Amino acid sequence: MSTVEDKLRAILGDRGVLTGEDVLMRSCDPFRNVPPGKALLIRPAATGELSDAMALCHRLGQRVVTHGGRTGVAGGAYTSPNEIIVSLERMNRIEHICTETQLADVEAGVPVEALQVEAARHDLFYPVDLGSKGSATLGGTIATNAGGNRVLRWGMTRQNVLGLEAVLADGTIVSSMNRLVKNNSGYDLKQLLIGTEGTIGIVTRAVMRLVPMPTSHGTAFVSVASHAHLLRLLAFARRLMTLSSFEVMWPDYYDLVASSNTNRRPLEPGQAAYVLIETMGYQPAIDQQLFDAFLEDAYAAGLIVDAAVATSGQQIADLWRVREAASVLVAELSPFVSFDISVDVRQVEPFMADVKSALALRYPVVRTATFGHLGDNNIHIAAHVGPETVSEESNVERIVFDVLRGFGGAITAEHGIGQTKREFLPEHRSGAEMRMMRDLRSAMDPLGLLNHDVLF
Amino acid sequence: MSTVEDKLRAILGDRGVLTGEDVLMRSCDPFRNVPPGKALLIRPAATGELSDAMALCHRLGQRVVTHGGRTGVAGGAYTSPNEIIVSLERMNRIEHICTETQLADVEAGVPVEALQVEAARHDLFYPVDLGSKGSATLGGTIATNAGGNRVLRWGMTRQNVLGLEAVLADGTIVSSMNRLVKNNSGYDLKQLLIGTEGTIGIVTRAVMRLVPMPTSHGTAFVSVASHAHLLRLLAFARRLMTLSSFEVMWPDYYDLVASSNTNRRPLEPGQAAYVLIETMGYQPAIDQQLFDAFLEDAYAAGLIVDAAVATSGQQIADLWRVREAASVLVAELSPFVSFDISVDVRQVEPFMADVKSALALRYPVVRTATFGHLGDNNIHIAAHVGPETVSEESNVERIVFDVLRGFGGAITAEHGIGQTKREFLPEHRSGAEMRMMRDLRSAMDPLGLLNHDVLF
Repeated sequence: MSTVEDKLRAILGDRGVLTGEDVLMRSCDPFRNVPPGKALLIRPAATGELSDAMALCHRLGQRVVTHGGRTGVAGGAYTSPNEIIVSLERMNRIEHICTETQLADVEAGVPVEALQVEAARHDLFYPVDLGSKGSATLGGTIATNAGGNRVLRWGMTRQNVLGLEAVLADGTIVSSMNRLVKNNSGYDLKQLLIGTEGTIGIVTRAVMRLVPMPTSHGTAFVSVASHAHLLRLLAFARRLMTLSSFEVMWPDYYDLVASSNTNRRPLEPGQAAYVLIETMGYQPAIDQQLFDAFLEDAYAAGLIVDAAVATSGQQIADLWRVREAASVLVAELSPFVSFDISVDVRQVEPFMADVKSALALRYPVVRTATFGHLGDNNIHIAAHVGPETVSEESNVERIVFDVLRGFGGAITAEHGIGQTKREFLPEHRSGAEMRMMRDLRSAMDPLGLLNHDVLF
Repeated sequence: MSTVEDKLRAILGDRGVLTGEDVLMRSCDPFRNVPPGKALLIRPAATGELSDAMALCHRLGQRVVTHGGRTGVAGGAYTSPNEIIVSLERMNRIEHICTETQLADVEAGVPVEALQVEAARHDLFYPVDLGSKGSATLGGTIATNAGGNRVLRWGMTRQNVLGLEAVLADGTIVSSMNRLVKNNSGYDLKQLLIGTEGTIGIVTRAVMRLVPMPTSHGTAFVSVASHAHLLRLLAFARRLMTLSSFEVMWPDYYDLVASSNTNRRPLEPGQAAYVLIETMGYQPAIDQQLFDAFLEDAYAAGLIVDAAVATSGQQIADLWRVREAASVLVAELSPFVSFDISVDVRQVEPFMADVKSALALRYPVVRTATFGHLGDNNIHIAAHVGPETVSEESNVERIVFDVLRGFGGAITAEHGIGQTKREFLPEHRSGAEMRMMRDLRSAMDPLGLLNHDVLF
């Protein structure tokens, strides 16, 4: 009697099946070593192979966990001893880029950055941008509906997918490789595969939307005197058509980062908030006028205290280094609990005040660093509560999420629920919503084979 | 033993139940009189009432059809003798508009135009625009994922909804009134309610996204010498950040409309295509520069033959009258079969040639008028095949859709499948897609109570 492994090898060939150290050396977590619970991984070379493998798993009741670039921070790739891994790493071809339709046909294992690089060769731009783009795959970002820095201009990954192909739990291949912007011919099935963290199907291919490569690039770093000024600046910035990022840093973050290195201090501290404003457009001279007019008008209206405007690529990079100072956070604040929450922009100040006082009540030494994509409601908080931070993680999360619930916020803006936030989900979605999610999931995967321990 | 009507009256009160002529006088079709098959209509005043009514219908196995503004042209509102009507007309409050978050909380029965008017009072703009906006409701446009003229800038209705509340077939109220741009906390359930034509749930309330009210407005009408020039002009226009519409008219349309009235002839005929280009922005002087530079560059690159640029509100209205000449079509081409298809922009010319020759083979007197939102792939065709056009409708559709399938097009871009295109859907989606749609629908509405004859 042949084993599951033998049967998979018969379908996928020797290159398509990994075992032993080749599997166990792969961490399921980007920040620490979390080896898979079982040393069996399949990596199909084509959709048909995956379909056959899933049909087998379905007959055997074998659970699987899908791996993209394993950059997710919510434990979506964690694998238990009764699950085998499906990796899309061999399905990594950019099949076609069309300059006229501005679409790319890709396999799910293509890294985000690889598409950006190839698109640039066609004078096109894939606008979804995230820190892990070198490893994160398009399939993974589709499954998690990844966000990033430019959501307020170009949307989440969902808005940048036109078509999908996926393999369902029973091996059925659903090909919905739509290439039409407007298409209301029946259910838009891709919407059910995007952002459901691999629980409805395994994304194998996609049609991605591209935009013309921007030819102008503006970057400024500004400080504002109050939260009210920050909100007015944001509303004002929404009229700036070239706006591509509006990244806010609060003093707990800015002071920490700026004090670590004077290169990371473009403006004097002491203000209520700091904003990195980025613009992209297609008419350099006019775009420059637009950006200058915006900054002058904002200053004249008393919305900004001070501004540093980048005039070279080096200065742009320096300003972004202030915003992307993960290394400083790690050096200065470790260990810390990371949050990726969304909250009403009007409520950020009272919300943060309540979070800090709730944490301080239990952890007098609490220190936080707060920053985020305010235009999309998304705030990241790093919270250090003392040397016991790691063991206290779940308690820290509960305190923050309890405050958040009172403000109608979301426990994850872009990282997803995965396994690590699963316990909190039912407290933040209604009973009717949870039932509807369960009904949908079990209609599509009645045996619960796909990413079984993810989401709910 | 009380009747269904009595029981519904007990839940909804006398104002909440209509019978007899009050129901039968309502056509289910905007273009001809199609009375409901049954003279019973409920119109809840609040979500709770609808929930109670649906719970009753669920117990009794009573089918329902949801009515918004009854402007849909795909027969989605047609009602058979064993169905009662659910109208959202009494749930027509704009509950709240927030200038800081740029969101509107609305009930489903609010007409699209009513939201636009109210938004304008807050210096905000609801960008989804369609001819029937005075009657079409937000709930109806959500259920059908309505498009319109500005999709290439602001997307379909789907992209303009942040949160939803709906009543499911069994009366369950699912409240997902999300107000956060980034929220990956579990399944994004609204995606399953948008564009599924009322088969998953009845939308009762929504959170709509607004944008700042544009302060600049540019409109030009241009002619191009060939399809290749048209495609290059479209690609070029995608770099114009203020672009809000790119409406193409082909000679069969333009010649018909222009010959009806010299006011509708802004440019000489004889070219391969005509385009109405609209821009909207927030910096009038700079936006004017941008538009002028775009037109000059397009002319210098040989992309356009001739251009008429509107310099007054009257001229803007006159140019749009060329594009929105439904009355001319009705006068000059009736009777005709209307198409709302999507096709690869590169294939429009061979596709239209094949359509015309396929129709001419059977109907030598065929005449067409072709226009559409090319940037979104969406083309509208009006086809007259002689005095027997009405009785031949289904045959004409089959001929056009058979050609379309060869080009990978979509049988409906924005109008939806409804009842009238239902027979064609299985020929244009794969067996696996149809199965997945059926599985989803029956998971959410196992008794098939909601819009039973719609879609599939």
